[in-house]
Amino acid sequence: MSEEKALVPRSEDFSAWYNGIVQRSELAGHSPVRGCMVIRPHGYAIWELMQQALDTRFKETGHQNAYFPLFVPESFLKKEADHVEGFAPEIALVTHGGGKKLEEPLVVRPTSEAIIWPIMADWIQSYRDLPMLINQWANIVRWEMRTRPFLRTLEFLWQEGHTAHASEAEAIEEMNRMLGVYADFAQNVMALPVVRGAKTPGERFAGALETLTIEAMMQDGKALQAATSHDLGQNFAKAFDVTFQAADGRRDHVWATSWGMSTRIIGALIMTHSDDNGLVLPPRIAQRKAVIVPIWKNDTEKVQVLEVAQRLAADLRPSHGRIHVDDRDKMRPGWKYSEWEAKGVPVRVEIGPRDLAAGQVTLAARHDRQKQTVKLAEVAPALEQELTRIQDDLFQAALRRREQMTYRIDSWNDFVDLFQGKGGFAWCHWCGDDDVEKQIQEETGATIRNIPLDREEETGKCVHSGRPSPGRVVFAQAY
Amino acid sequence: MSEEKALVPRSEDFSAWYNGIVQRSELAGHSPVRGCMVIRPHGYAIWELMQQALDTRFKETGHQNAYFPLFVPESFLKKEADHVEGFAPEIALVTHGGGKKLEEPLVVRPTSEAIIWPIMADWIQSYRDLPMLINQWANIVRWEMRTRPFLRTLEFLWQEGHTAHASEAEAIEEMNRMLGVYADFAQNVMALPVVRGAKTPGERFAGALETLTIEAMMQDGKALQAATSHDLGQNFAKAFDVTFQAADGRRDHVWATSWGMSTRIIGALIMTHSDDNGLVLPPRIAQRKAVIVPIWKNDTEKVQVLEVAQRLAADLRPSHGRIHVDDRDKMRPGWKYSEWEAKGVPVRVEIGPRDLAAGQVTLAARHDRQKQTVKLAEVAPALEQELTRIQDDLFQAALRRREQMTYRIDSWNDFVDLFQGKGGFAWCHWCGDDDVEKQIQEETGATIRNIPLDREEETGKCVHSGRPSPGRVVFAQAY
Repeated sequence: MSEEKALVPRSEDFSAWYNGIVQRSELAGHSPVRGCMVIRPHGYAIWELMQQALDTRFKETGHQNAYFPLFVPESFLKKEADHVEGFAPEIALVTHGGGKKLEEPLVVRPTSEAIIWPIMADWIQSYRDLPMLINQWANIVRWEMRTRPFLRTLEFLWQEGHTAHASEAEAIEEMNRMLGVYADFAQNVMALPVVRGAKTPGERFAGALETLTIEAMMQDGKALQAATSHDLGQNFAKAFDVTFQAADGRRDHVWATSWGMSTRIIGALIMTHSDDNGLVLPPRIAQRKAVIVPIWKNDTEKVQVLEVAQRLAADLRPSHGRIHVDDRDKMRPGWKYSEWEAKGVPVRVEIGPRDLAAGQVTLAARHDRQKQTVKLAEVAPALEQELTRIQDDLFQAALRRREQMTYRIDSWNDFVDLFQGKGGFAWCHWCGDDDVEKQIQEETGATIRNIPLDREEETGKCVHSGRPSPGRVVFAQAY
Repeated sequence: MSEEKALVPRSEDFSAWYNGIVQRSELAGHSPVRGCMVIRPHGYAIWELMQQALDTRFKETGHQNAYFPLFVPESFLKKEADHVEGFAPEIALVTHGGGKKLEEPLVVRPTSEAIIWPIMADWIQSYRDLPMLINQWANIVRWEMRTRPFLRTLEFLWQEGHTAHASEAEAIEEMNRMLGVYADFAQNVMALPVVRGAKTPGERFAGALETLTIEAMMQDGKALQAATSHDLGQNFAKAFDVTFQAADGRRDHVWATSWGMSTRIIGALIMTHSDDNGLVLPPRIAQRKAVIVPIWKNDTEKVQVLEVAQRLAADLRPSHGRIHVDDRDKMRPGWKYSEWEAKGVPVRVEIGPRDLAAGQVTLAARHDRQKQTVKLAEVAPALEQELTRIQDDLFQAALRRREQMTYRIDSWNDFVDLFQGKGGFAWCHWCGDDDVEKQIQEETGATIRNIPLDREEETGKCVHSGRPSPGRVVFAQAY
């Protein structure tokens, strides 16, 4: 741990609490480059587990990884009109290379459509080459002015899927499939309940016909967009002339999608599960699912306790993996307890001389501090059960909180009250007018997070304009 | 496969052959950004297997991954005098961000010492924080003028280890340990025999006290530097004021190492094992260890053969992993054979109706075209044996070739003849003079690859200057 001082409680200053967690649990740190964070080993381990879980899902759905250039010639970015308009203000520009001014400046990729499509154009000749299902793990640069660790940084890590299809229907199916993959990952690995839905036209990805998102609720009632999946139609195919010969001999432009999830979601993980004592991690995304803390007072005890601790860890690893024995000499057990608590390790296993004599250990859960005594021979099943309970508890708690802080609001006064007060998700009618959406944002800071895919059929009146609405959308203030 | 036309044979034009393999087996392609390649899925799969194998070894030796910024403020690069001198000519410079000129330009990292050390300085307070053993997987930009896929590209992927130690001895031990990790990986995974040694002072990494390398020999007798490991002494610690409190209370600068391996080694893999029919991959680095090609003439046969092929693959996967069934409808078996041959799949498993009737399959090895008929029930052990044989054959063939093309040379005439002729590794005496090293390079194109760690004790006379020499070094022309 960087420092011993207590965290600012959530109730006092949510933002200071968040920054405290990031720093104290050594997830990330500031760097001398404005807006760029350093992802420290404890934070990077979360990213690695995310990568494994996502990459497995991408491969199971037929995708292959590739790697495209970091740099995009400036003229390429300009080929899709909406695209350049969306990204131009956030661009970092390389103007000199090898000591010379470049003839054409290079943009550091803010997303890769404008470099991937001219390249994929060469890979695709006929319908036999389709679908082409590519994913890239990469770093991305967007010149953000106000930055916060994980949530918004000048450089961030992500994956970006880019796929080409022979028909519009297949592209839409892919967009939906990948949103499903993200929702499954968010809910079952990260324990983050999410609302799936479509962005309003004004909030779509620059160059997309449709943008789907999953939105998670943080403990302060704000929303965080955890992933996006876009139907790009033939926009990029036309801009970069990506065509294929169909089975009937016609040439047509391909239909494309792109979809991404980034290090940003680690911010959601922190703000959903953690408490005033530090980070809380769901077991499936925890670098160390359990830490065994051996307790001793003298060298004889140390030898005995450590031997049992190491044996226990070795027994547990084949089925559980990621079990750590904290055998450090210089720290006392109490110090170790609070370190692992701050770092969010789901289960602490305590084992001391008295436990040894009784042939037992104590399991302590991080999230609710429940303790139980378990016979040595029964640690494996007990730990398994406990990890399952923790993973489930965290998801259920987040879901309960979201339900408690989700409202159906039909009056503008109630709407204003909610967002001047405790916040949350407001399911409201909206007339579909861009200007109304903007006005609501100006007046309350709340934006339409998405138009839920599973919303009920219900017409009504727009919460702001009073005009007819085809159904409810989700408003929230957002990160 | 991109095209059907045959490769230029190695004997005719080694360089055209190399480019042909890269293109035909779809490992990489050109991009619209000068000097930047695209790593295509078949090439990226090799990188992913490299990452897994290396990352496991790094973690087993106590290292953790982290991620540091892509950008380095220009002034930081200048803090270590040798370092900036070495990298200044290769720099890509970001001068504009978010539409504005930056107060200080940012360098796109050509290596990360100059951004990692100012950050690690904050993580290290006392000897208890040491050793600090960090690795980063990242993209790197060096403004190279002449580029070739994998071998030299403007942007490339690598890992870079950066470690801090309490003593010089520990840093040197780490440098040696990581060279050993690289040599083990190169030899046992990539089947590349390597010569371990130290660079001459003139060829050290900019800012290092000592640079160790592993050098592999390509089929044309040229050398390729496959990895480096540096002892940085206290140079960077002093430039960036990285100090720690020792056990006795003194403050001292840390002792540092760095070490890296990049996508460049994929070039070595290609140029060591491949032949005039295409890529040859050692099984341990092959995305598909074996491809099952089912053969049928009508739909009845197709159903029967495919069923057995899929069952066989399912049986093999738990123990062998990475077994592919090529069930494509539109290609004939012969076409599939040559595709997988070009792509370097170690073993092809043929299974047709007659095989089915006889309860057998045919295994065909890629590298020596040996075929064997195997009973269905015995495919698993036979394949295991075959994969072991292939991995070993490739290593032994490369080792034999290196031995055949390695010479102890004591006369300048013989030296000139060798490098005007067929080339190879020349173990020669060298007086230790920088100028002599440069002159040899000017006259023959050969450089000192390294001073082998395991060279015999043997004094002699410099092959060029005739002055006394403390021992033999390895000369070669190099990629």
